[in-house]
Amino acid sequence: MARPNHRKHRKNLLTSPGTLTYVGEKTNIKTVIKRIEYNDSFYQEEVASTMEVCIPKKVPTDQPYITWLNVTGIHEPQVMEQIGKLYQLHPLLLEDVMNSYQKPKVEAYEDGHLFITMKMLHLGKTGAGGIWGEHVSFVLGKDYLVSFQEQQSGDVFTPVIDRLKGSVGKTRRSGSDYLLYALMDVIVDNYFLLLENFSDQLDQMEDQVINGRHSQSLGDLYDLKRELTYTRRLIWPLRDMLTQLVRADDPLVSKRVFPYMRDVNDHVMQIIENLDAYRELLASLVDVHLSTISNRMNEVMKTLTIFSAIFMPITFIVGVYGMNFDNMPELHERYGYYTTWAAMALVTLGMLLYFRWKKWL
Amino acid sequence: MARPNHRKHRKNLLTSPGTLTYVGEKTNIKTVIKRIEYNDSFYQEEVASTMEVCIPKKVPTDQPYITWLNVTGIHEPQVMEQIGKLYQLHPLLLEDVMNSYQKPKVEAYEDGHLFITMKMLHLGKTGAGGIWGEHVSFVLGKDYLVSFQEQQSGDVFTPVIDRLKGSVGKTRRSGSDYLLYALMDVIVDNYFLLLENFSDQLDQMEDQVINGRHSQSLGDLYDLKRELTYTRRLIWPLRDMLTQLVRADDPLVSKRVFPYMRDVNDHVMQIIENLDAYRELLASLVDVHLSTISNRMNEVMKTLTIFSAIFMPITFIVGVYGMNFDNMPELHERYGYYTTWAAMALVTLGMLLYFRWKKWL
Amino acid sequence: MARPNHRKHRKNLLTSPGTLTYVGEKTNIKTVIKRIEYNDSFYQEEVASTMEVCIPKKVPTDQPYITWLNVTGIHEPQVMEQIGKLYQLHPLLLEDVMNSYQKPKVEAYEDGHLFITMKMLHLGKTGAGGIWGEHVSFVLGKDYLVSFQEQQSGDVFTPVIDRLKGSVGKTRRSGSDYLLYALMDVIVDNYFLLLENFSDQLDQMEDQVINGRHSQSLGDLYDLKRELTYTRRLIWPLRDMLTQLVRADDPLVSKRVFPYMRDVNDHVMQIIENLDAYRELLASLVDVHLSTISNRMNEVMKTLTIFSAIFMPITFIVGVYGMNFDNMPELHERYGYYTTWAAMALVTLGMLLYFRWKKWL
Amino acid sequence: MARPNHRKHRKNLLTSPGTLTYVGEKTNIKTVIKRIEYNDSFYQEEVASTMEVCIPKKVPTDQPYITWLNVTGIHEPQVMEQIGKLYQLHPLLLEDVMNSYQKPKVEAYEDGHLFITMKMLHLGKTGAGGIWGEHVSFVLGKDYLVSFQEQQSGDVFTPVIDRLKGSVGKTRRSGSDYLLYALMDVIVDNYFLLLENFSDQLDQMEDQVINGRHSQSLGDLYDLKRELTYTRRLIWPLRDMLTQLVRADDPLVSKRVFPYMRDVNDHVMQIIENLDAYRELLASLVDVHLSTISNRMNEVMKTLTIFSAIFMPITFIVGVYGMNFDNMPELHERYGYYTTWAAMALVTLGMLLYFRWKKWL
Amino acid sequence: MARPNHRKHRKNLLTSPGTLTYVGEKTNIKTVIKRIEYNDSFYQEEVASTMEVCIPKKVPTDQPYITWLNVTGIHEPQVMEQIGKLYQLHPLLLEDVMNSYQKPKVEAYEDGHLFITMKMLHLGKTGAGGIWGEHVSFVLGKDYLVSFQEQQSGDVFTPVIDRLKGSVGKTRRSGSDYLLYALMDVIVDNYFLLLENFSDQLDQMEDQVINGRHSQSLGDLYDLKRELTYTRRLIWPLRDMLTQLVRADDPLVSKRVFPYMRDVNDHVMQIIENLDAYRELLASLVDVHLSTISNRMNEVMKTLTIFSAIFMPITFIVGVYGMNFDNMPELHERYGYYTTWAAMALVTLGMLLYFRWKKWL
Repeated sequence: MARPNHRKHRKNLLTSPGTLTYVGEKTNIKTVIKRIEYNDSFYQEEVASTMEVCIPKKVPTDQPYITWLNVTGIHEPQVMEQIGKLYQLHPLLLEDVMNSYQKPKVEAYEDGHLFITMKMLHLGKTGAGGIWGEHVSFVLGKDYLVSFQEQQSGDVFTPVIDRLKGSVGKTRRSGSDYLLYALMDVIVDNYFLLLENFSDQLDQMEDQVINGRHSQSLGDLYDLKRELTYTRRLIWPLRDMLTQLVRADDPLVSKRVFPYMRDVNDHVMQIIENLDAYRELLASLVDVHLSTISNRMNEVMKTLTIFSAIFMPITFIVGVYGMNFDNMPELHERYGYYTTWAAMALVTLGMLLYFRWKKWL
Repeated sequence: MARPNHRKHRKNLLTSPGTLTYVGEKTNIKTVIKRIEYNDSFYQEEVASTMEVCIPKKVPTDQPYITWLNVTGIHEPQVMEQIGKLYQLHPLLLEDVMNSYQKPKVEAYEDGHLFITMKMLHLGKTGAGGIWGEHVSFVLGKDYLVSFQEQQSGDVFTPVIDRLKGSVGKTRRSGSDYLLYALMDVIVDNYFLLLENFSDQLDQMEDQVINGRHSQSLGDLYDLKRELTYTRRLIWPLRDMLTQLVRADDPLVSKRVFPYMRDVNDHVMQIIENLDAYRELLASLVDVHLSTISNRMNEVMKTLTIFSAIFMPITFIVGVYGMNFDNMPELHERYGYYTTWAAMALVTLGMLLYFRWKKWL
Repeated sequence: MARPNHRKHRKNLLTSPGTLTYVGEKTNIKTVIKRIEYNDSFYQEEVASTMEVCIPKKVPTDQPYITWLNVTGIHEPQVMEQIGKLYQLHPLLLEDVMNSYQKPKVEAYEDGHLFITMKMLHLGKTGAGGIWGEHVSFVLGKDYLVSFQEQQSGDVFTPVIDRLKGSVGKTRRSGSDYLLYALMDVIVDNYFLLLENFSDQLDQMEDQVINGRHSQSLGDLYDLKRELTYTRRLIWPLRDMLTQLVRADDPLVSKRVFPYMRDVNDHVMQIIENLDAYRELLASLVDVHLSTISNRMNEVMKTLTIFSAIFMPITFIVGVYGMNFDNMPELHERYGYYTTWAAMALVTLGMLLYFRWKKWL
Repeated sequence: MARPNHRKHRKNLLTSPGTLTYVGEKTNIKTVIKRIEYNDSFYQEEVASTMEVCIPKKVPTDQPYITWLNVTGIHEPQVMEQIGKLYQLHPLLLEDVMNSYQKPKVEAYEDGHLFITMKMLHLGKTGAGGIWGEHVSFVLGKDYLVSFQEQQSGDVFTPVIDRLKGSVGKTRRSGSDYLLYALMDVIVDNYFLLLENFSDQLDQMEDQVINGRHSQSLGDLYDLKRELTYTRRLIWPLRDMLTQLVRADDPLVSKRVFPYMRDVNDHVMQIIENLDAYRELLASLVDVHLSTISNRMNEVMKTLTIFSAIFMPITFIVGVYGMNFDNMPELHERYGYYTTWAAMALVTLGMLLYFRWKKWL
Repeated sequence: MARPNHRKHRKNLLTSPGTLTYVGEKTNIKTVIKRIEYNDSFYQEEVASTMEVCIPKKVPTDQPYITWLNVTGIHEPQVMEQIGKLYQLHPLLLEDVMNSYQKPKVEAYEDGHLFITMKMLHLGKTGAGGIWGEHVSFVLGKDYLVSFQEQQSGDVFTPVIDRLKGSVGKTRRSGSDYLLYALMDVIVDNYFLLLENFSDQLDQMEDQVINGRHSQSLGDLYDLKRELTYTRRLIWPLRDMLTQLVRADDPLVSKRVFPYMRDVNDHVMQIIENLDAYRELLASLVDVHLSTISNRMNEVMKTLTIFSAIFMPITFIVGVYGMNFDNMPELHERYGYYTTWAAMALVTLGMLLYFRWKKWL
């Protein structure tokens, strides 16, 4: 479980390479393993109570079937090690499965399987609007697929399991590579929910910035920007991964699955483009926000200047006639007081006209 | 119909891949299918009342002709599915045809056809100056072309139909690949109208910014910038598409059409370059606008300072002679009052000269 | 004739491709065609009164010579069409010749000729310092070269014609590819004049910005920036063009001309680098200009603050002794008035020292 | 020892190439050489008292073992020269070993060994939070590895030595290439400690900026930015190095070590990505900081304007009734004084309401 | 001699290509040619009084020796032409030798020699801290090297000549390619002196900016930035040049010299990286400088506001008791005057506390 903060990284430093330790935030989640077997004529699922259930069985060539080992929880080193032994997984592969800070990648191992790791992104249950990336890995073999999930997080794979169980569709009739596609597709589809969340937040902020209710909005804008950047960094490597899957001549991924992989790639591209568009929009909002502040300052200064320019002259005038000179003839004129008022009114009017002419009013 | 807003994306999440649903804003448009057949010696068109009209016919090799199936409206899944069956289109291809958020791309399918999708851009009829992108797709076969349009939008293809109908020109004498070119050319030509609209808006904004009528202009500038970005994003992939069409050794696109495709590419490049130039100009306008605001602030501050610097000293002077000390010899001098006025005039003059020397006046 | 404004683009929209129309600003220029024939032993030139003069002649292999058809004026579609027919030029090639918004490019046509189009840049005769790009195209054949110029613009090709006429130099002894080089070299050499003009403008602006005579200078800076960008956009594609000419195995360009083409490329690179350096310098000037404004604002504010800080306290003091309380002992003291003056002088001095200590004075 | 300052570079300028001089800050460190020999059945280590211990021994093919020469201190040219002679190292290789400003690189020498140099990064013991890069080099041969360290810096290689000594693990059973991997892995693992230090500093600064305790914070932000940039520049070349090691067909690095090298590469990528994320965060902090300053200015101006707008009018009013006109009827009215107070209260209230309406209060 | 100004470019415009003219600032430097011959057993040098000394001699294969023609001064076309004829140099090569604005490049000529041109950078003797680039070119043949220098500039090649003369070292035992390396190495080593100069200037500016002695510093910062950019532009192409020299299969550069060329490349990379780091540091300094100005403005505004907020209220109060109403009971109270003072003291204290609470004091 990797949060967009920047505190923890890789804890098992300075241990011998291949030493298995879970890297990420601590949890007490027990590993649950589900074994699903299916082909176009049968389907059966079983929760593994002992490790024996996980042993890969010899698939008969006359009636082949697909085995999907769905492992939930990657926190127990000894369980991971056992699975690693059963499926002949390289120690470094297992290290990557258990390192929740590992970024998405695909790697072909010489032992005849393909390793894929990516992130399932969830809207933060923990706090206000945060995002967290669940570490998901796949090991694709000739007629099996092992999937590793960090948590039972609302069971993202359920739609695929339901489809498998429900009817003899394309997934049931196809190989383990199509199953891999189906699971990746479900994960990528989920990213769109995130996009919609971002889009809603952006709409709200746009309103706030344009209506000038800007208290704290700059902080919010930067928070959203950081989330966008974090999401983008987790999704971006998928592009290379998928192109690699399609281009490589790996016999594990058949040509028939290529259009599907390309379709997932299209979705990934669409998401990345949207994220980029959001970032650009965000940058514009920041600019508009800053220019709003600057405009407001301008307005404040104008107000001050207008007040000063009107009251300074007339305060000066009343000051003049507050002087105590013996010889000030105006003071003794009959309508001196009223004339003074008239003069001050004139000055005020002149100032107002001047500022109107300057378009400050 | 995809607007440059950022609200809706891809709705048929978590359904089985290949499930056809229209993705975009809801409309009640009925699908209309027109079948056009032509070669250099005959031309005939027919609106399909039943699906049977759409069945691809066996083209005689001695007198080959081109079939163009012009489908308007992509909102009815069952119609799309029927066309898909008739022309053996991959379910994912049909998904792309119906997903109005799909970005432009070209894809070669193994079943012997080429899939091309792009955007026709329209000036928004809905609001003030908005842009919307109509989703247009093509399926190019050996002697047929199926085109899918989202709406009857002012019938962009009419000039091509008129040319086909009107005379035995190059289009009538060439294959389905040339027809594809002609239709793409019409779409790209339409982009130039958009460019002119952008250019007019820019001219107007330039005037506003330079003449300082800047109320709300920053918002307008950012709106235009966003439209430019949106347009660029829809047009940019065409570059790769067209290069791909020309470089690929696809037998469906003959070498004779290459120069024409390259010509469309040239136009696309010209449009992108213009868009980029507009964006740069826009950025300069924003800078000029901000510097105008800053200059104005400067002017406001100068006005304030000049007023203060003139009236503060003379107000002080009149204050001095408003004091009530018993022993103030000046008050009893005969011309004290007039001397004071002279002194204040001198101070004022001095200040004015000082500010003129500082070039603030 | 393409100006760096952003108004007109491509007018013959929605016509059948290959329909020839001049695209650019309207002029009444008549097309003038000059036919020049030369080899190392003879030289002859002739202005074409009829189209027959333009017919490509069969060059005898024992005494080969080069034919250069110098076409001035690209505004008459029917003339262009006739030349196109005589030299078997593709309709799209002719469209590019007549489209003055076409950006520089090189294209090899299968009919055995090479098409090159580029811009001759002129300092605007029309206005103050504007730049306009004249559209120039070349068709290079085995022993002929057809050049198309938009206008009789001060006859840029004259130096080459003079060299051909004057003496039996390298140009006379070489093929049509060397002639092409010579003409391109003349055009690129002319760009250096532009550079010098830019450089002069920059020097002037640098002076203005540093001396703070900044009225309108920001606008000027942006105008120059736009011109630099415009020029760069027209010159930039030459780089690719020239590399393409040298790398391609086109038999029309012999290896002996390669060093010369590389030399032109070097010049183009030098120009682009200078333009980039100018742009950078311009950006620095804008920054210095903005910081000057900001500094000035600072100075204005300081002046205001110093005035206020000095006059506010002493105005307050004189206010105190303007009060009319019955019991104010100071008023009746003999030297009260003078003491007050002394106090005010002290306050003023204190303030001045304070601001000196703050380094505001 | 290279600090992130920019003072010293390469001192042995203008000497004949290959002349050995230590380049870096001067120290008096004596070179200490340790010779370690091991295979899966034995382990032995010895500190070299004479150079003879360093002579590479002939390894018997029936019971091969690995020799690791661990050289600490690169400051004595004559020692380096001797080692160079014993192991046939190119003079330029030795120059790179002794030049502590040499950036990380890998180079294959034709004499059958591979040269690798990189930086061990330490948190500055010298000052407050500085970083210094220790220069580390490796020479990989068929069954030997020579490592050069600048200092005895807390002995980074200790964990590897302990593992070798402690048990017959993977390192003991593998070749010199795996030993190289193990040492590089230890160095890269150490980078994570740096990351955590950066992350802590960032957290602290984030707090400071958001809480507005901003005295000197801009300087601190730029200091951290410079350290990030410095670190990134030292780590970045590792990416290419490692890819090169894996792609090259060098017989010295066996395919079995490839996954391990790729794993180190993954870590390097993770570190670089984190550094980039930190830089972006830092840039946001700078923006927030600047906007905070700007907001504060706004607040200051508002305060000033509100004060002025309230006190200027009422000071004017009291000025009016301080005038000494003979004929001022209000002065003689019974409740004139109280009415004036009421009027001033009204004006003040009006101003307050006006500013509340303007949302300045 | 090319200065970082932007005034002169390429003067011999519109002349026939290959016409030799010196391009650069005018000087009266006479061309001096030195002929050096050496191998591992003899060394001899001779200043050419006539052109005959320059004639390339037939080198005997049994006792081969290297000829180095060191030409100082590139201003006399006729001398250059003669050398060109003797060594069969292409006219364009000579043009590049004489064009001091030519950027660094390497070119292989078919006549069996390699042309290399680069810049020697000098700290400006002319003015305060300027940099000027001396144009240096090399023509490398099988057993000869011709070097062209613009000026006798402190004789950069002296260390190499001394090494040749002094002892039978690596240079004496190697071919002309090693001599080329030695000369290039000397030039690149000289760049480090420049780096140190830049570094010193940066240190000084850093001090100035941090201590706020900022008069004119922005201008200085931009001047340094321009010099860095200029230097970088002259050094950058060396990277490509050196890679080209090493990658190309040119028989003139033997494999034994490859590590040396790679070493020069390493130094070039190190210099470029340092320049980039300086530029980044400079950008940070500009930001800090601007933020300092902004902070100062803030301080000025605060001072103004505090003064106003304190003196406006108390000036108002004294104004009140300066009014001349008949009925003002306070005036006649015994301690009215003192009470007023107390009130004003209270107001002032309140204000001071308010601003302290706001952290403005």
